[in-house]
Amino acid sequence: MREVGIGIAGFGTVGGGVLSILRRHAGDIEARLGARIVVRKVAVRDPGKERALDLDPGLLTGRVEDLLDDPQIAVVVELMGGIDQPLSLVRGALERGKHVVTANKALLAARGDEIFRLARAKGVDVYYEAAVCGGVPIIRTLREALASDRIGSLHGIVNGTTNFILTEMAEKGQPIGTALAEAQRLGYAEADPTLDVSGGDAAQKLCVLAQLAFGARLAPEDVLTEGIMALSPYDFRWGKEMGYALKLLAIARRCGAGDQIEARVHPAFIPAGALLAGVRGAMNAVVLRSEALGPSMLYGQGAGAMPTGSAVVSDIIDLTRNILSGSPGRVPLPPAEPRVALRPHDDIRTAYYLHFQVQDAPGVLAGIASRLATRRISIAAVQQREQNDQGRPVPLVIVTHEAREADLRAAIAAIDADPTTLAPTRLIRIENV
Amino acid sequence: MREVGIGIAGFGTVGGGVLSILRRHAGDIEARLGARIVVRKVAVRDPGKERALDLDPGLLTGRVEDLLDDPQIAVVVELMGGIDQPLSLVRGALERGKHVVTANKALLAARGDEIFRLARAKGVDVYYEAAVCGGVPIIRTLREALASDRIGSLHGIVNGTTNFILTEMAEKGQPIGTALAEAQRLGYAEADPTLDVSGGDAAQKLCVLAQLAFGARLAPEDVLTEGIMALSPYDFRWGKEMGYALKLLAIARRCGAGDQIEARVHPAFIPAGALLAGVRGAMNAVVLRSEALGPSMLYGQGAGAMPTGSAVVSDIIDLTRNILSGSPGRVPLPPAEPRVALRPHDDIRTAYYLHFQVQDAPGVLAGIASRLATRRISIAAVQQREQNDQGRPVPLVIVTHEAREADLRAAIAAIDADPTTLAPTRLIRIENV
Repeated sequence: MREVGIGIAGFGTVGGGVLSILRRHAGDIEARLGARIVVRKVAVRDPGKERALDLDPGLLTGRVEDLLDDPQIAVVVELMGGIDQPLSLVRGALERGKHVVTANKALLAARGDEIFRLARAKGVDVYYEAAVCGGVPIIRTLREALASDRIGSLHGIVNGTTNFILTEMAEKGQPIGTALAEAQRLGYAEADPTLDVSGGDAAQKLCVLAQLAFGARLAPEDVLTEGIMALSPYDFRWGKEMGYALKLLAIARRCGAGDQIEARVHPAFIPAGALLAGVRGAMNAVVLRSEALGPSMLYGQGAGAMPTGSAVVSDIIDLTRNILSGSPGRVPLPPAEPRVALRPHDDIRTAYYLHFQVQDAPGVLAGIASRLATRRISIAAVQQREQNDQGRPVPLVIVTHEAREADLRAAIAAIDADPTTLAPTRLIRIENV
Repeated sequence: MREVGIGIAGFGTVGGGVLSILRRHAGDIEARLGARIVVRKVAVRDPGKERALDLDPGLLTGRVEDLLDDPQIAVVVELMGGIDQPLSLVRGALERGKHVVTANKALLAARGDEIFRLARAKGVDVYYEAAVCGGVPIIRTLREALASDRIGSLHGIVNGTTNFILTEMAEKGQPIGTALAEAQRLGYAEADPTLDVSGGDAAQKLCVLAQLAFGARLAPEDVLTEGIMALSPYDFRWGKEMGYALKLLAIARRCGAGDQIEARVHPAFIPAGALLAGVRGAMNAVVLRSEALGPSMLYGQGAGAMPTGSAVVSDIIDLTRNILSGSPGRVPLPPAEPRVALRPHDDIRTAYYLHFQVQDAPGVLAGIASRLATRRISIAAVQQREQNDQGRPVPLVIVTHEAREADLRAAIAAIDADPTTLAPTRLIRIENV
């Protein structure tokens, strides 16, 4: 039986998942491939450390160079995390004509261009299903299943940590601090949760998705990004009354003549009956709208040793098929030249939920309404509850019709400069997914 | 630029979709492939008939043999419908070393074995994404994305016509006749809707899915199949009160030591909060549970010219990639030898909703309860509403704990033989998806 050698760099949670799937399903995989996948080396920071999975000590090495120098390794699996070290490993692998599987969205979002260019030049493949939404086959679907179609928009719940926190807030009425602490206790959030709760992780994933879906070339800093830390139980209560769920969405959408896209990550109210509203806990989902297929959705676990490991192993199997049938480069990597431009954030148009903290005084609502009107922002609904508590500021909620982001920002700046406004106005966009 | 020639047999709804997608996205597809897909011939029943899409009359032929005889045609796209004619076309194509794309689930469910065996012998590919759930990439996902995983169960809404009818009944409280007529008026149901409403169409699709997911070899008549025509507004009202949605599900599930599967198509109550409960109208969805990935779902349009056409064109693109990179047979066809057996329907275990029509007389409930108890069927809930209308039979609903199908059938037969039972007892299974 033919053998294809792989080397794994990094042996944390996902690495452990990859190895146990390769072991447990070895028979099935061999039957499907007509070949054997053999792990030749595993590069780790400290080869002396005890491992949960019993690993032949002869496989372990502290030097990633050992993977590069081994001529029997045809596929390098990068599971290290970070950017600089993985980049140098991936470069080294591609230069030696080895194929690469990576689960590293940060690396792809920051240096994907360079990596794909080198892979193209060397005629080898880079697969990265596990980089976005763990085991959900969104990369494969964009790359192959929708190769016949033209995608109009993509709305994703692509960060399980924040979706877990928002689900807790929605279902238990908790403030965000409590929900975050619960997520940390259960292992859904890291000790430093910044990358997740800021929307930064979702923005990296959106860059990877937008390249495949639209041929966009975005860096995470190009994405309009707002996190979840400002959300309050009041927002959830309001949403529930009005028939909305509140989710952190990653959105990319074709606009203008179709040669521009919007790219943004932010909390959004969506109709409570939408399929995305039913995505609970740490689950991930992506809704696509495309010309021929119309709306479609992929749903599943976005993180964890086994889900992410299964995506890595499926990539290894796919690459092995290319190697066995002599067809590397069979599905081309994303093109170097961007095919769409980024629409300026100022020109984004959505409906907005605006949460004002204002003095309970005559003329305050009139003032806000007129500042919105002068910027051509039309009001769809207003809610101001009677205030028993004399001293406290009055929460006033206004929902606008679709408006231009720059106009909205200007109106809020003017309103917030007003002495009757007691705290910065908060906005949450409303999306019809 | 290299060209790959295709021939299309059958030019109905889906054929039109295929052609318009190939035309509209020709530029994109060429850019992605580095090659051109050229339609060489279109075989139709009546080449003289007027067509909505303007088609070069030189392409049209009344003889499918013309597709087989054309050496420039590398891929035959079978969109004819039926079994005998398509089978002879597909056989002819494979024998001449041509690849095949088909959207014909009936053909695959009935003669898939023979077709795959021939394709394997000839070293050519058979792709059939469009045969199940239209544009939803379920075939590709089972074949490739989950190649690393072991699937435990599959629950699908795979028939849009019946899901449309059940959605109407649930949301408007309509009887099935009214909802079916509405589906026919809107073009979701055919003049003779038997294949859809009997569950037969879903059973054919389940056969195709179960082969990929489990390596099962099933014929549609092996599948426990119950249609939707017996469902009443009462069932929906009861479900709504109890927190259930009512859907026609296609289910295949590993059981026993994992070397047997259950295969069934029937209406089922599922929790109202389940994602499948949110699949409305003519949409399709499949929930998979697998060892590594856990629960996952694919959702989208299961029928229509453009969704189904896009699946066909994605298959054509994939095949063209195989041709260009010289890698036909890269992903093997389902194995000839079944890897699991079918569990006898008698041994299926689920919870049941039982709807009795009985006389309002002393001892009737006691009689039913004792007939269930003697077959070790345990009662989870009972509902009998007060009856004002003296003459009419009393609807009595009993929900059982999980029970064995054969025991349940025996109990119902005994109850239905009782003179106090006024109409055959109806059962609906309860599934925890």
